[in-house]
Amino acid sequence: MTEDELIAAIAPLTQGIGDDAALWQPSRSHRSAISTDVLVEGVDFTREMMPLGDAGWRAMASNLSDLAATGARPVLATVALGIPDAATRDDVLELYRGIAACADRYGAAIVGGDLSRAPSWTIAIAIVGEVRASNAKTRSGARPGDVLAVTGGLGAARAGLELARGSQLPGDLAEEALLAFRRPQPRLAQGRFFGASRNVRAMMDISDGLSTDVARLACASGCGAELDAIAVAPCARWFAQRIGEDPQRFALAGGEDFELLVAIRARAFAHVAQRYEARFKSPLYRIGVLRAAQGVVWKGVALERSGWDHFAPAVTPGG
Amino acid sequence: MTEDELIAAIAPLTQGIGDDAALWQPSRSHRSAISTDVLVEGVDFTREMMPLGDAGWRAMASNLSDLAATGARPVLATVALGIPDAATRDDVLELYRGIAACADRYGAAIVGGDLSRAPSWTIAIAIVGEVRASNAKTRSGARPGDVLAVTGGLGAARAGLELARGSQLPGDLAEEALLAFRRPQPRLAQGRFFGASRNVRAMMDISDGLSTDVARLACASGCGAELDAIAVAPCARWFAQRIGEDPQRFALAGGEDFELLVAIRARAFAHVAQRYEARFKSPLYRIGVLRAAQGVVWKGVALERSGWDHFAPAVTPGG
Repeated sequence: MTEDELIAAIAPLTQGIGDDAALWQPSRSHRSAISTDVLVEGVDFTREMMPLGDAGWRAMASNLSDLAATGARPVLATVALGIPDAATRDDVLELYRGIAACADRYGAAIVGGDLSRAPSWTIAIAIVGEVRASNAKTRSGARPGDVLAVTGGLGAARAGLELARGSQLPGDLAEEALLAFRRPQPRLAQGRFFGASRNVRAMMDISDGLSTDVARLACASGCGAELDAIAVAPCARWFAQRIGEDPQRFALAGGEDFELLVAIRARAFAHVAQRYEARFKSPLYRIGVLRAAQGVVWKGVALERSGWDHFAPAVTPGG
Repeated sequence: MTEDELIAAIAPLTQGIGDDAALWQPSRSHRSAISTDVLVEGVDFTREMMPLGDAGWRAMASNLSDLAATGARPVLATVALGIPDAATRDDVLELYRGIAACADRYGAAIVGGDLSRAPSWTIAIAIVGEVRASNAKTRSGARPGDVLAVTGGLGAARAGLELARGSQLPGDLAEEALLAFRRPQPRLAQGRFFGASRNVRAMMDISDGLSTDVARLACASGCGAELDAIAVAPCARWFAQRIGEDPQRFALAGGEDFELLVAIRARAFAHVAQRYEARFKSPLYRIGVLRAAQGVVWKGVALERSGWDHFAPAVTPGG
């Protein structure tokens, strides 16, 4: 297996990766947006947890989710892979097919890449999208009084991780959990919907757990937050109850859900939620409000960040 | 050390890495260009070979070199880092300062990033640039009869690797070799010069060794190549002679030189070379010609690809 042979095998899954750089013509009426995310085997996933194709899908989904959080639509991506010595050509292709399937599903062309040996599988993707300047959202536009809402019940990916580790869930719930964990669906259409609304003042995706990410949005906006009812995915509720954990606490700490977190002008919330539900046939979950006092409280108690942090002490793979 | 603390420490070296995606306004009169490159500790470099700051510089230089090969000017970059468990905050900052110094030197703003734990240092950069559509070069435009030329003597980075492994070189030559190995200078101004010339029909950077990269350019252009005089860097010549190796063969096989390889219409070569030398106060080295017959020959013998290949058997770190 030489590098050129491997590139030739992958090339049909891309829009051409032969030259030193790929060219494109950006839209004249939009801003361009870029984001990057890296997944590492043994840290973000293990081979036992999920097939390589699913790891590839999730790596791309995680990047697309960052674009969704800006209100952008995807245009193109580059993929840099670190490949362990023991990997076969088929392993590389399986991983790449997962990456390409997710890119294709959401309209991103893979235009460039790089391959290197590495001690473990490493998937570093950069994604480029486009968004009208007036529609671009950040984390920093929220104000005290704004309503916090999420696009879906949380904790499903964490339930999926537990399932992959050998826990049991009933059929439908197992399917929900596995899908969330292995083939997460970035909320691109939802992100563009929120981007187009002037009543949505801040947005981000929930990749490191709600408790961590709410704190980030609130902090970037110079406020604090008070959470009340955490939206919990059905599979997460079932699993939490089974292990005797509070379902809302379970959902708060689960990472990688890739739902969107938005701050909406309070007087417009009902209107936005109604339009959202008509459009997406799915509820927009109100989970709390921004407030002037710093910090995040839940049920009257200051909340520690309990989500995923690569650099906090005592890391364990996954989540 | 938490992820947010690490991001706060790095942020001053960037143009802001707080949001899910970074926005920019692309030039209306140019195409955008993107490329990605990943460097892995133990594969592309070791801590013994070079300080982390130099590894960071080289990772960014390698990306910028890809833009140079397209004729583009740099605009922005994203940086995804894999960080080993034993790393300190100072290690991360040292690496990042090298990345940022190189980006700053060549006008690229770092606008986004991601941090993850990883078994070894991993630096995955994506770089975005801009180039007029009419100035963009690829590997595939060369024709039989075109002259092949390079922007500098080759083998210097390989001599630098040998130096880092403990070999001795005289003062000036040691400096040349170390600079090439640890702080390579991507040929961005030269790439834009070639981009503006209609007599330059194909271009790429020499990252995996001249023998490999000439074969790639020739193959992409549907021709072969005949090399004659390989341009050898003075430090590489000195070192090759000392170990009893043919200096041209030593230079052919050395990777990571980041010089540009160009194919120039034969009847315009003297004119382009004269203008190049007046502009850059440095020779443009003629090394051979493209020909209709496939394959690359040197001194009448078919040349095996002897440059760096991550996936060929018997890989060794470096080069």
